[in-house]
Amino acid sequence: MIYLDNAATTKVNIDAVKKAEYLLFDEFYNPSAKYHGGITAQNVIKQAKNTFSKVFGANFEAIFTSCGTESDNTAIYSYTKRGNAVTTLGEHSAVFAPLDSIMKSGGDVRFAKINSDGSVNVENLLSLIDNNTTFVSVVHVNNETGAINDINSIAKRCKEKNPRLVFHSDGVQAFGKISVKLSNYIDLYSLSAHKIGGLKGVGALIKNKSLKSLKPYIIGGGQENGLRSGTENVFGINVFETVLLDKIVNFDKNFKHVTALKEEFLSKIDKTLFKVISSDNSSPYVISLSAVGLKGEVLQHMLEKDGIFVGTGSACSAKNPFSRVLKEAGYDEKVLNGIIRISFNSDTQLSDVAFTSQKLNENAMNLKRAMYNL
Amino acid sequence: MIYLDNAATTKVNIDAVKKAEYLLFDEFYNPSAKYHGGITAQNVIKQAKNTFSKVFGANFEAIFTSCGTESDNTAIYSYTKRGNAVTTLGEHSAVFAPLDSIMKSGGDVRFAKINSDGSVNVENLLSLIDNNTTFVSVVHVNNETGAINDINSIAKRCKEKNPRLVFHSDGVQAFGKISVKLSNYIDLYSLSAHKIGGLKGVGALIKNKSLKSLKPYIIGGGQENGLRSGTENVFGINVFETVLLDKIVNFDKNFKHVTALKEEFLSKIDKTLFKVISSDNSSPYVISLSAVGLKGEVLQHMLEKDGIFVGTGSACSAKNPFSRVLKEAGYDEKVLNGIIRISFNSDTQLSDVAFTSQKLNENAMNLKRAMYNL
Repeated sequence: MIYLDNAATTKVNIDAVKKAEYLLFDEFYNPSAKYHGGITAQNVIKQAKNTFSKVFGANFEAIFTSCGTESDNTAIYSYTKRGNAVTTLGEHSAVFAPLDSIMKSGGDVRFAKINSDGSVNVENLLSLIDNNTTFVSVVHVNNETGAINDINSIAKRCKEKNPRLVFHSDGVQAFGKISVKLSNYIDLYSLSAHKIGGLKGVGALIKNKSLKSLKPYIIGGGQENGLRSGTENVFGINVFETVLLDKIVNFDKNFKHVTALKEEFLSKIDKTLFKVISSDNSSPYVISLSAVGLKGEVLQHMLEKDGIFVGTGSACSAKNPFSRVLKEAGYDEKVLNGIIRISFNSDTQLSDVAFTSQKLNENAMNLKRAMYNL
Repeated sequence: MIYLDNAATTKVNIDAVKKAEYLLFDEFYNPSAKYHGGITAQNVIKQAKNTFSKVFGANFEAIFTSCGTESDNTAIYSYTKRGNAVTTLGEHSAVFAPLDSIMKSGGDVRFAKINSDGSVNVENLLSLIDNNTTFVSVVHVNNETGAINDINSIAKRCKEKNPRLVFHSDGVQAFGKISVKLSNYIDLYSLSAHKIGGLKGVGALIKNKSLKSLKPYIIGGGQENGLRSGTENVFGINVFETVLLDKIVNFDKNFKHVTALKEEFLSKIDKTLFKVISSDNSSPYVISLSAVGLKGEVLQHMLEKDGIFVGTGSACSAKNPFSRVLKEAGYDEKVLNGIIRISFNSDTQLSDVAFTSQKLNENAMNLKRAMYNL
C-alpha cells in the first residue's frame, strides 16, 4: 500500500500516542479540577503552550481548538462584524465558505484573484484593501497545488495600506512541511494536528500576543484563557506537541527528502500525458497535475487497484464536481476533470514515488488508448 | 486513589480505545477521500450514526461535534437571531454564558428561576414564553446538584404555549446515567463523550429529524451533511459509539449500583455537619452537599491527602468564587463556601464511598474543632 494523500490526512504518530496514553487511563483528570490530578492535566496544556511559543516565537501563543476549520472560523467571525474583509480565491473551504456566507448575507467581502499555480495575485489583493478593511486572510500553502504565498511580505504590505487590519493565514498545509517563521505582521495563524501525524479533532490558532481583540467563538466555561471553552482535549494536545517537536527537529532532513521525492516524481511523469499545475517553487509536499482530457477519478481508482492512494481535488470539499480553486486559477474543464493530487509525508519512500509515476503513466496511456479504441 | 469527580470527567474506557486504535494507525484515512480507505472511515461514522439513532429513536440523528459546549453553542446560535430565548438559571456555563452574552449585546433572553435543589421552576419558565419565543433550553440533569428536569413534559408544555419554538436540552450529565427517552417534543439534545468513558474533544448534538432549520456553527468543507465542518474525528466518534453502547447495555445494573452508592453515602454522612443540597429524586450520580460554615476547598484538599478526589463547584467554571447556580438556588455564603460535589461512575466501589463519607465526617469535624480552638 502506497499512501500519497497526506495533504488530506496523515497516519498518526504511534510513539506520540503511546507517550500520551497515560492521559486517557491514568492522569485523565479535568484540567479545571483543583486537586493534584487536575493541576497535572493543566500543566500538560501549559507545557504544550510553552513548546508552541518556543516554536513560533515568544510573541506568539497557541489557543487549542478542535480543528483547522474551527481555528479559521474563530479568526474570521471575530473580525467581520464591521468594515470589509479581504481574502483570496485560493483559500481552503474553511476560510472560503464562512467568508462567502458572510458576503451572501450582505457583508463586504472581497476575493483576490489567483495565479495559475494557485498563489494569490498580490497586487490584486492589495488593491482590494482600504481604510475600512478589518480582516485579511491569505492561505500560506494552497492545499490543492502546494503554492506558497509569502505571507510575511504580504502581511507587511497589507498593513502598510491599513495598519489597523488583522492579518490571518491558514497554515494547515504549511506548518511542519515548509519553513514557517512568522513575522510580527502576522496576527493569527491556523494549524491542524492531523496533517502532521497528530489526531483528527485537534487544531490550534496561533495568536500574536499583541492582538488583544480576538473574541472567543465557542463560549462556556472559559477555558483557554476565555478564548475557547469546552473541556480541553489534553491527550490530543499532548500528541500535537510531540508531533510538532518531531517536525521541527527533523525539518531539514524531511524537507530535503521530500524535495527529492518531488523531483523524482516530476522527472518520471510523462509530460505528454500530464500537465503539471504546481510550480517549481511550491511546497514539495503537494503536487497537482492533470491528465488533460481524462477523468482524474478514474485514474484514482485505477491507481487504487495498484495499491496506490492519491487525491483528486481537495478531500475537504469532495461534494463539488470541480475544484473551485483550480477553476479560479483559470483552467478549463478538460484540465479540471483530469486533476490528480499527490501529497507526500516525510516517511514516503522514493521507490514508491517512482512506482507511482510509472503506474500513472501506464494507466493514463491505457485510458487514452481505450478512449480512441486503440 | 478514590476518584469521585466523575461529573467533571471520567477515566477513558480502555477497551473502547484499544478497539478503535486501528483508526489511528491503519485505517487512518480522511472520510472525505474517495478511495476505499476513505469510504471505510466514512462507514465508521455512518455506523456510529446508526447506533445513535437506534439508541435515541429513529426520529433522531447525531451530529458529531468537538464537545458538549460546541453542541450547546450550535443550538443556541442557530435560533437566537430574532425573537426571544428562554432558559434557566440552572444551566451549565456552556448554555448560560452564550445566552448571557447575547443578552448583554441587547438580545431578549429570559432566565427562569430555579428551586433549592437546582431544578427549574417550571411555572416560572412557562410564564416567560410568548409568541416571539424562538428557543428554549433546559438542562436535563444539573451538573452541580444532579437535579433532574422532566424535559419531555417541560418541552410539551412549552410547545403548547408556542408550537414554533425550538426546544433544546443539555443532556451531558444525563445520558448514560439516568433513563433518557426523548419524546418528539425535544428538538435538540447535547452530549459529551468524556463524561461516560469516551474521549475529551468529542461530543454530539442529537437532532430531531423533523427539525430542518438548524444552521451549522463551524463552516467549511461541509462535513456532517453540511452541519459541522472539519475533518471528522473518526477515532473519537468510534470510541464514543462503543461507550454509548456499553452504557445502554449495562444501564439497569449500573443505575441500581449507583443508587446504592448514593444511599450508602447519604446514610453515613453526618447531617449535623453537612447540609445535603441534592434531592431524593435527583440523579444518583451526583451529590451536592455543603459543610456549612466551612470551606469546601479546604475539605477537598484534606480529602486529597486521604487519596480521595472530589469536586467543589462545577469544574467547568473554576474561576468563579461561588457556584452561580447554587447562589441562584437561594443559598447564603455559609452554604456556598462549604460546597462539595461527589460524583460517581458505574465502577465506583461501595467501600470507597463508605470510606469517603467517614473521611468527610472526620475532616469536617477536625476543621470545626480547629475553628473553635477545641
